[in-house]
Amino acid sequence: MTEEGALSGLVVLDLTRVLAGPFCTMMLADMGATVIKIEQPGIGDDTRGFYPFNEKGISTYYLNLNRNKKGITLDLKKGKQVFLDLVRKADVVIENYRPGTMEKLGLGYEELAKINPRLVYGEVSGYGATGPYALRPGYDILAQAMGGMMSLTGWPDRPPTACCGSIGDILGGLSVCIGILAALQNVHRTGKGQKVDVALTDSVFASTVITSQIYLTEGRIPTRIGNRYENNYPYDTFTTADGTVALAAGNNKLWKLCCDVIGHPECGDDERYNSIGKRAKAHDEVRKLIEEWSTKHPTSEVVEQFVAVGVPCAPIQNIAQVVADPHIAGARQMVVEVDDPVAGPTKMTGCHIKLSATPPSVRTPAPTLGRDNAEIFGDFLGYDKAKLEQMTQEHMI
Amino acid sequence: MTEEGALSGLVVLDLTRVLAGPFCTMMLADMGATVIKIEQPGIGDDTRGFYPFNEKGISTYYLNLNRNKKGITLDLKKGKQVFLDLVRKADVVIENYRPGTMEKLGLGYEELAKINPRLVYGEVSGYGATGPYALRPGYDILAQAMGGMMSLTGWPDRPPTACCGSIGDILGGLSVCIGILAALQNVHRTGKGQKVDVALTDSVFASTVITSQIYLTEGRIPTRIGNRYENNYPYDTFTTADGTVALAAGNNKLWKLCCDVIGHPECGDDERYNSIGKRAKAHDEVRKLIEEWSTKHPTSEVVEQFVAVGVPCAPIQNIAQVVADPHIAGARQMVVEVDDPVAGPTKMTGCHIKLSATPPSVRTPAPTLGRDNAEIFGDFLGYDKAKLEQMTQEHMI
Repeated sequence: MTEEGALSGLVVLDLTRVLAGPFCTMMLADMGATVIKIEQPGIGDDTRGFYPFNEKGISTYYLNLNRNKKGITLDLKKGKQVFLDLVRKADVVIENYRPGTMEKLGLGYEELAKINPRLVYGEVSGYGATGPYALRPGYDILAQAMGGMMSLTGWPDRPPTACCGSIGDILGGLSVCIGILAALQNVHRTGKGQKVDVALTDSVFASTVITSQIYLTEGRIPTRIGNRYENNYPYDTFTTADGTVALAAGNNKLWKLCCDVIGHPECGDDERYNSIGKRAKAHDEVRKLIEEWSTKHPTSEVVEQFVAVGVPCAPIQNIAQVVADPHIAGARQMVVEVDDPVAGPTKMTGCHIKLSATPPSVRTPAPTLGRDNAEIFGDFLGYDKAKLEQMTQEHMI
Repeated sequence: MTEEGALSGLVVLDLTRVLAGPFCTMMLADMGATVIKIEQPGIGDDTRGFYPFNEKGISTYYLNLNRNKKGITLDLKKGKQVFLDLVRKADVVIENYRPGTMEKLGLGYEELAKINPRLVYGEVSGYGATGPYALRPGYDILAQAMGGMMSLTGWPDRPPTACCGSIGDILGGLSVCIGILAALQNVHRTGKGQKVDVALTDSVFASTVITSQIYLTEGRIPTRIGNRYENNYPYDTFTTADGTVALAAGNNKLWKLCCDVIGHPECGDDERYNSIGKRAKAHDEVRKLIEEWSTKHPTSEVVEQFVAVGVPCAPIQNIAQVVADPHIAGARQMVVEVDDPVAGPTKMTGCHIKLSATPPSVRTPAPTLGRDNAEIFGDFLGYDKAKLEQMTQEHMI
């Protein structure tokens, strides 16, 4: 059942739904782990019904996040013993139920560890498995709100702003992946598994590490200041004739080069702007200087001129531009296509973790509901045909 | 040299500076790895000079990101052989130089693998080690711009918006950490190390996985729509009498409960709002209905009333509120203090990856420049006193 990947041979039982958990197990599967996605018979992952849909009405939200995984159906109440059989042969279980759900089924970590002490058990939830809010339902937007990120993102005269792309879920998914892989290192050393507990809120707060340090150090509450950096300038976005660019001229040398490009070489050593601190204070004036020039030139030219002299600058790209970008989509292969025999050819994001000897890849399409029941229950667990038929009749799978 | 942690015994040579790399090695060190931070003699990590500073003028930006690490000084040109001695005894090297820098020093992955084939070599850079933009200097704000995230974050009538907290660097740091730990799994299996190459731009684009799927599926370019979700409502933020809350009433059952709370039980089954799709279309009307009620009550009461009936709702907290939060800062220990004998007691963010058997912790303060030279060069490499003195005189360390 193994593919050639960094995680070949690793068996992951994946009970997660929607985004944070499936994003984690997507990376594990891309890197070669055998991820067995376990779905409720007849229902499956909610995201099978999530927008966007392809011409056949199949959710590409689901198809992307679940590529490379095996898919089985199993009712955890009726099929408790079957799940335990899987646990005996697995390295990792991961779930994103509300904390306590698995315990109620008699399938909490403590129970599973009794039959497989090497098991690593990962859970990712809105607020984590401990603490007063543990049982509240958690969602990406709530984690961004609670964890401080929204208060810091956006414009001073506008409401707190969510970061695109369900970043709370993504941060949670990445973080539980790290915890699981670290716990597996510990299994190699000690032979003992453990539980990994990641909260979206904690993950969001941890990502504010720089900004939150202002409050922890000075007692001053940082707030929204648009795209500029408080203590360094010009480290901001600037309008061009046809769009916007990001510029990061974060030291005196880069500032001088920047002044040459915008046709104000005399400003490089100007007393008003000749230190990071002075420029940060005079950010309004510096912005005007730069935009006097940048608004007269198209984005491509602005980027080209800055980059040519070594000043860090990049265009603000929309998704169509990223997907057409020769570097990101091209050389870095961040857009790939999988030939799905059911859904048809499907474009999706590539794996962003590049490993030289065992490159992650998109090899197999996401499972239709229960696609791999015969392989997993038959070949992997060794159940016979009669047992499989009985399980089907009992709506256990 | 090992501490009791999931990664105890793992030796990491850390050449990274500023944020993305140090955030990765901070997590590795929190989880027990022996992270040896290698800095340029007399200069050190740029962030030693980064705001904010404590009363003693010491950067807490630096102190937070480098807790739990060992710190040595080493000029990689003069001390190339010394670095190779370290590589012989290490499991991981990680750097965030511009691609090609280590190769120029004769210390590229290929060279290091010759003397330590089990070595895992991680690099995190703005654009990654391959492709046409590889040699451009990379910064967080450029990655957010190039990777599509800024085009999607913010308000329709405002410019593309950066997500707070250098999220590009954070995503890159988390991702290279996953790559390194996955590659270590492969070392256990095959005995062979490899190179892990993570780009900030790739990491940012990968995190737009849901939104970018709209373009990849439909050819329609998604753009900024504030805090609401395009295909589900009310999944948005709402004004209260004294602040803002995030609400995620993402299905019909939750919508009905929501209507009860806001005093419009008749709207629960109203033909205009009785499906996710209808509410998403009528989001302006639904917003008005909710804010008619929410603006009359303080945030605490709005959250309490929704949460009491099971509707997912959370306050938008600023950093001071997060730091005072009994769940996040309290139960989840996401704010910790380290007693630094040089810098004084210092508050910082806790580790957000909770492991039950080997809990990550903040055990030792960040190193002063070259603090652990004697321990690492003497005890770990076994150099004698004369050699150390010579290295010092040659400004090699």
